[in-house]
Amino acid sequence: MSKKLTKRDEDYSKWYNELVVKADLAENSAVRGCMVIKPYGYAIWEKMQAELDRMFKETGHENAYFPLFVPKSLFEAEEKNAEGFAKECAVVTHYRLQNDPDKPGKLRVDPNAKLEEELVVRPTSEAIIWNTYKGWIQSYRDLPLLINQWANVVRWEMRTRLFLRTAEFLWQEGHTAHATEQEAITEAELMMNVYAEFTETFMAMPVIKGVKTASERFAGAVETYCIEALMQDGKALQAGTSHFLGQNFAKAFDVKFATKEGKQEHVWATSWGVSTRLMGALVMTHSDDNGLVLPPKLAPIQVVIVPIYKGDEQLDAISERVNPLVKELRAKGISVKYDNRDTHKPGFKFNEYELKGVPVRIAIGKRDLENGTYEVARRDTLEKQIVNADDVVAKIEFLLEDIQKNIYNKAIEHRASHMTEVNSYEEFKDVLENKGGFISAHWDGTEETEEKIKNDTKATIRCIPIDAKEENGSCMVTGKPSKYRVLFAKAY
Amino acid sequence: MSKKLTKRDEDYSKWYNELVVKADLAENSAVRGCMVIKPYGYAIWEKMQAELDRMFKETGHENAYFPLFVPKSLFEAEEKNAEGFAKECAVVTHYRLQNDPDKPGKLRVDPNAKLEEELVVRPTSEAIIWNTYKGWIQSYRDLPLLINQWANVVRWEMRTRLFLRTAEFLWQEGHTAHATEQEAITEAELMMNVYAEFTETFMAMPVIKGVKTASERFAGAVETYCIEALMQDGKALQAGTSHFLGQNFAKAFDVKFATKEGKQEHVWATSWGVSTRLMGALVMTHSDDNGLVLPPKLAPIQVVIVPIYKGDEQLDAISERVNPLVKELRAKGISVKYDNRDTHKPGFKFNEYELKGVPVRIAIGKRDLENGTYEVARRDTLEKQIVNADDVVAKIEFLLEDIQKNIYNKAIEHRASHMTEVNSYEEFKDVLENKGGFISAHWDGTEETEEKIKNDTKATIRCIPIDAKEENGSCMVTGKPSKYRVLFAKAY
Repeated sequence: MSKKLTKRDEDYSKWYNELVVKADLAENSAVRGCMVIKPYGYAIWEKMQAELDRMFKETGHENAYFPLFVPKSLFEAEEKNAEGFAKECAVVTHYRLQNDPDKPGKLRVDPNAKLEEELVVRPTSEAIIWNTYKGWIQSYRDLPLLINQWANVVRWEMRTRLFLRTAEFLWQEGHTAHATEQEAITEAELMMNVYAEFTETFMAMPVIKGVKTASERFAGAVETYCIEALMQDGKALQAGTSHFLGQNFAKAFDVKFATKEGKQEHVWATSWGVSTRLMGALVMTHSDDNGLVLPPKLAPIQVVIVPIYKGDEQLDAISERVNPLVKELRAKGISVKYDNRDTHKPGFKFNEYELKGVPVRIAIGKRDLENGTYEVARRDTLEKQIVNADDVVAKIEFLLEDIQKNIYNKAIEHRASHMTEVNSYEEFKDVLENKGGFISAHWDGTEETEEKIKNDTKATIRCIPIDAKEENGSCMVTGKPSKYRVLFAKAY
Repeated sequence: MSKKLTKRDEDYSKWYNELVVKADLAENSAVRGCMVIKPYGYAIWEKMQAELDRMFKETGHENAYFPLFVPKSLFEAEEKNAEGFAKECAVVTHYRLQNDPDKPGKLRVDPNAKLEEELVVRPTSEAIIWNTYKGWIQSYRDLPLLINQWANVVRWEMRTRLFLRTAEFLWQEGHTAHATEQEAITEAELMMNVYAEFTETFMAMPVIKGVKTASERFAGAVETYCIEALMQDGKALQAGTSHFLGQNFAKAFDVKFATKEGKQEHVWATSWGVSTRLMGALVMTHSDDNGLVLPPKLAPIQVVIVPIYKGDEQLDAISERVNPLVKELRAKGISVKYDNRDTHKPGFKFNEYELKGVPVRIAIGKRDLENGTYEVARRDTLEKQIVNADDVVAKIEFLLEDIQKNIYNKAIEHRASHMTEVNSYEEFKDVLENKGGFISAHWDGTEETEEKIKNDTKATIRCIPIDAKEENGSCMVTGKPSKYRVLFAKAY
């Protein structure tokens, strides 16, 4: 805590890595690429979970739990999905360790305990779930099947970063089955909208809704819907995806249903997920050189009260004023911490709560006691003011709402000022190099051009926005005709 | 659903297996020993989680998340713990699959993607967590450290049964660190008491609190506290354990702290957990030959309303009466389902909700419409009565409380009538054979005698009850002196 945080404009990447650790959100573990989510970070994730879970249930979904392991034969059943994940999956091959005869006190894999069939640690659960759905779906009466799972998944990524890309991560994955193509598409779109509503309302993070190009689609999907956010360094971050899977998995696992008319048809599928990656997005959207800035709706501690005192007598007088305030705030559902530890000085506490992004900080000292006031500071703008004790609850309530709005508006403005329309490849490269952000440009719709742009510039097509307007243009690279602009950016 | 449930007195074990599947709680998966927890079963588990999580937080604990994998070198650090779990652990040895050159369309483990160090899928997390705590604990100011994790764990059990013993299961595991031995013991006892309060208050399942004998202790523990419940077939079930770990893990992972006086000392530890096994205990404590009997406090649906009608007009009239009732009940926090599906007959619905253990069933037909009444049935006793519409809300509220109490009392009575004091080994064997239940007997305190009894009879010492009275007696097997009675039973 003593060492200062690297500044964002010095080294944004280093700033992020330091902040996540110093603010007690997460740290690297002894397992390559796997993180430990610390209590303060986990408390934010729990708040995200609670809101998402409520939204899923309100849209008719139920939770269930499916096995961690996918037998290899199931894993390989949907060819594209298997191809997409085979390169980075953890494989269980044995079910026992034994004493190592060559090294006393050490263990080794028991060669006699080799599994007949290898088990893949789920990188995503379509295979195991669709193999299960086969038994659950017989008739149109069993549809739609709307299920979500909160789980851990493992993808053996070579380059990892806390929250943004880790070998193991926590997520939710929805898996739904429908009688018609249109119903499944509607579901996939609905969940993209639920995600957007969540990130905007609770994370105060604006997102662009769109669909992915073929090359960026989820392995096994017919269409991938996504929400894309913009980080402060001008790089984009894919915050959530929702896939229309067509009948790919239903065919791979032979899941058919009897229609009302008695015909046998394959069902239509979706899957959708968000993960602990959202924690990284949250940090990078709002935080500053002093530390985290948390939206009040997700902050584990919304208000902290720090007494400034000399001697027990003064502390007692302060506590007498503060204790009823704490009670009143809690009764209003505001989470508040009264930090009366005598092991740390007020300055230390101020720094700590700034680093941890507590939205509102109240200080009370000798003069406040005499004057019947509090010093109230807001984390987003660092503004401080003296507030009468009678007005402090109303002031806190106002600030919690205002901070939520203010950081959202700030993010909206940042995005607006980093959204550039370009009409030539030169201009494109220039903006990408010197300004970053989303670049809206015409593209000829081919994978070759997309690939060339990626190789030339590292920028990818983040999405074809849902609300893209039809516009006759020509591809900035090939000059071929194009009907709408797509969004490019460098991305996390 | 059509096929009737096996009766408990015909084949208790078969009854259980059938009920879990037919009531849509869980089913076996394509992965040996791993289950799928279905939405209805998962909804009960979520209710358990919510109550436990609240109780953990009220006693000062925070949640965090640690990696799924334990590197072999950490796994083997605490010798007894490693020895206890090495025999049944899933081991990840590779991180990639590739196309099988011999079998087109099939995948195989990529021999070039062998991990340098094998990873054990956590069977329990002491090793990975204590390796992390080493970085978190420096001074007495960092203690106590009170952390809980909700997670999945894997133990490669050879004989599995849904919920009771599965290769993968869901659980919570608390891991705490303390400055003194006494504090750690107090914590371990506190959590045993929290578990007992939870099972009794919410599951309506009485338990006996006690400590395990040395041979039944958790691998690596100095003392294992437990709660033991009695199932309807007279077998015991260990419902939760809380371990005082001494300094075993602190020493294995070299976790020391500076005392107030500046000395370096190893910290003291506890761990404690309950799992989806509780779902099995819940089923076996209360359910009957007609299906599940759920305690209202954990029932996903507390009240179901079934209309009995001919034609849309009658259904409309019923709905007009029922809709405000549904609203009123929901406003009171009661979860209620109005099942107006026209695809199933009332008799089918009655059977379904009986099977699924919905505590209160309301039926309303033509005569009820005319008379301003409802038919109200309680699941625990299957009693029905006609209730005036004006009184129905109060009646439902009464029933939800009364059912919770009634099934608890029934379980208490069952246990009381299956708790036998014996003073000779002959008597012991006779009671075990002909009556089952807990048997309270004197034991000489040696592992040899414990082992002999187990080999002779399959009964184990479930616990030395916390409230065991001192009593001069002699071991029922060896005649050696004994100071208190211990509890034996056959167990799940």
